[in-house]
Amino acid sequence: MDVYYSKRQLEHRPQQIMLLGKLTPPVENPDRMEVLARRLKEAGLTETAPADHGRDAIDAVHSADYVDFLASSYERWAANPKAGPEVLPNTHPYRGRGSALGSSTKPPCSVVNAQAGWYIGDLNCAIGAGTWSAVYESAQAALSAAHAVIDGRPSAFALCRPPGHHAFADRASGFCFLNNAAIAADLIAKRAGKVAILDFDTHHGDGTQAIFYDRKDVLFASVHTDPTTYYPYFSGYADERGEGEGFGANINVPLAPGSGDEAFLEACRTLVKAVRSHETEVLVVSAGWDAHRDDPLSLLDVSTDAFARTGELLADLQLPTLIVQEGGYSLEASENAAAAFIGAFCSRHKWI
Amino acid sequence: MDVYYSKRQLEHRPQQIMLLGKLTPPVENPDRMEVLARRLKEAGLTETAPADHGRDAIDAVHSADYVDFLASSYERWAANPKAGPEVLPNTHPYRGRGSALGSSTKPPCSVVNAQAGWYIGDLNCAIGAGTWSAVYESAQAALSAAHAVIDGRPSAFALCRPPGHHAFADRASGFCFLNNAAIAADLIAKRAGKVAILDFDTHHGDGTQAIFYDRKDVLFASVHTDPTTYYPYFSGYADERGEGEGFGANINVPLAPGSGDEAFLEACRTLVKAVRSHETEVLVVSAGWDAHRDDPLSLLDVSTDAFARTGELLADLQLPTLIVQEGGYSLEASENAAAAFIGAFCSRHKWI
Repeated sequence: MDVYYSKRQLEHRPQQIMLLGKLTPPVENPDRMEVLARRLKEAGLTETAPADHGRDAIDAVHSADYVDFLASSYERWAANPKAGPEVLPNTHPYRGRGSALGSSTKPPCSVVNAQAGWYIGDLNCAIGAGTWSAVYESAQAALSAAHAVIDGRPSAFALCRPPGHHAFADRASGFCFLNNAAIAADLIAKRAGKVAILDFDTHHGDGTQAIFYDRKDVLFASVHTDPTTYYPYFSGYADERGEGEGFGANINVPLAPGSGDEAFLEACRTLVKAVRSHETEVLVVSAGWDAHRDDPLSLLDVSTDAFARTGELLADLQLPTLIVQEGGYSLEASENAAAAFIGAFCSRHKWI
Repeated sequence: MDVYYSKRQLEHRPQQIMLLGKLTPPVENPDRMEVLARRLKEAGLTETAPADHGRDAIDAVHSADYVDFLASSYERWAANPKAGPEVLPNTHPYRGRGSALGSSTKPPCSVVNAQAGWYIGDLNCAIGAGTWSAVYESAQAALSAAHAVIDGRPSAFALCRPPGHHAFADRASGFCFLNNAAIAADLIAKRAGKVAILDFDTHHGDGTQAIFYDRKDVLFASVHTDPTTYYPYFSGYADERGEGEGFGANINVPLAPGSGDEAFLEACRTLVKAVRSHETEVLVVSAGWDAHRDDPLSLLDVSTDAFARTGELLADLQLPTLIVQEGGYSLEASENAAAAFIGAFCSRHKWI
């Protein structure tokens, strides 16, 4: 299996996020990618540089004005001598009842700090000098892996960083800017048939869900920590089933804090059944390692071995499979979980 | 004229806000109220303690779950030993297209830091130990002044702090938690007839506009700095006219940065005409002094004398008038502008 990534993805080096009223260094940092890249090569994957597929497939999922903002905001921000080191929003539009914003889909204001509040939903997405370059390359890694699968490869690994599953069509959040898995899945759905995205990151993939919520050609199926007390809080509940012709093509299995291997694997089996029922032609996996019991953000009690069992479950679908890197914040737990997953997947995946 | 305020309003002592990616001490601080209270007494107003009118009139404007959040959030936040000194949100719900939130009007999550993102729209509204007490008293000052006018007094001054006009029915923003002017205006509209709120704070009163956007019994008329490049950015544009039966009962006159006295007074004359056309029975003034050329936030070039002329314009309406304190962040410019306004108003206001 090829693993796609580029060193330019290391250039996103956020200095600060806000958590519980305090500025703090982000757990989503470049070290994560270097550790995973090394371990995946040790596990037998072949390092491959992504090609540049341009913006078309990105703009098919994200609004062009949002992508323009990501590409241009740092330069505009840094031109203000009073501004801090990175783009961080401090005011957000009101879109509730009685708002005068109506159905506007673009910010009416022209200054970058206000646009930041429109396009960035939290304080985990600082934009610095190298952010756009890394974000763009991360999406190209996903697109290159998607093209490999479209062109007939049985599987591919997109070592995306920054991650993507909290990115909405027009909003960054949760360390995510462009939704790498969604960009890949949309392209595959248009070129190669019905897609299922199976997301086992410990956080609900709220951005991916929203992007495909009204579509029936892409199933979104996720296991994650119950959002009642866990990020992203505002979605990931079991009653979110999709809407319009997408109704039924969205499935969430939230797990209570403290859930262990058996609950995690049972949830994965439920999702695998949904993938089969969807008559899936290509599987996209949003792979986060942060459900691992040693992850600093984890509230679950999932072992390294459970990731191996998950790899087997997904391999047994015997579908062309694109694996997209999402979260995982313990360097050691992440590389062990990734190696266990990939080792088990490769040993069982027979699809030519 | 009586001026209503309570020392408990000083107990909101926010330590930090975020501005352009940096944490900084807020310009909205207790000193503002002490300076204004002294100067208004010197100008002949009579200091009066607000009565406690309870929550009914507050809940008539704000959602009860939001008010409960304001009242309870600090205690719940402070119970977390990892939390910073004040409630500050770091993640906000997505309410755009494709969101799975549907029509939910309450947060689905139970933890206070997530609810903070639902109910607080920016990083200018830190909630500390004394915030709720101050916010509640500020609303009681507005309610006490409203009752005075309802009971037949020609005018009253509510020295509200924290201010209110950026507070929405279910959201804090821009230093504001409860919308004091809206709470007063709603009560007056129900007890004493048609109300106009004239807002000359240099920031658009986005919360007040949203609260009354679909109502015809309360006109909202505002002059402020063009939001294209100025807080609150996302509303305050001239084409926001109200909706439903409230269409036409909302008027915004945005001024370009650099506008001086004549533009400001011409805008006030336009608003006064709208107040007359509305067949207003009681006038509520959202009085901010931050258009003053010496205010640290001002982009306009308005002099102390222009506030005197504004006082004359409003007095000449010869309506029962409730003046509600909003912004103003230069202590010296604010007290001078307030004294000029009140002096001129009192010399011309002949009602009863």
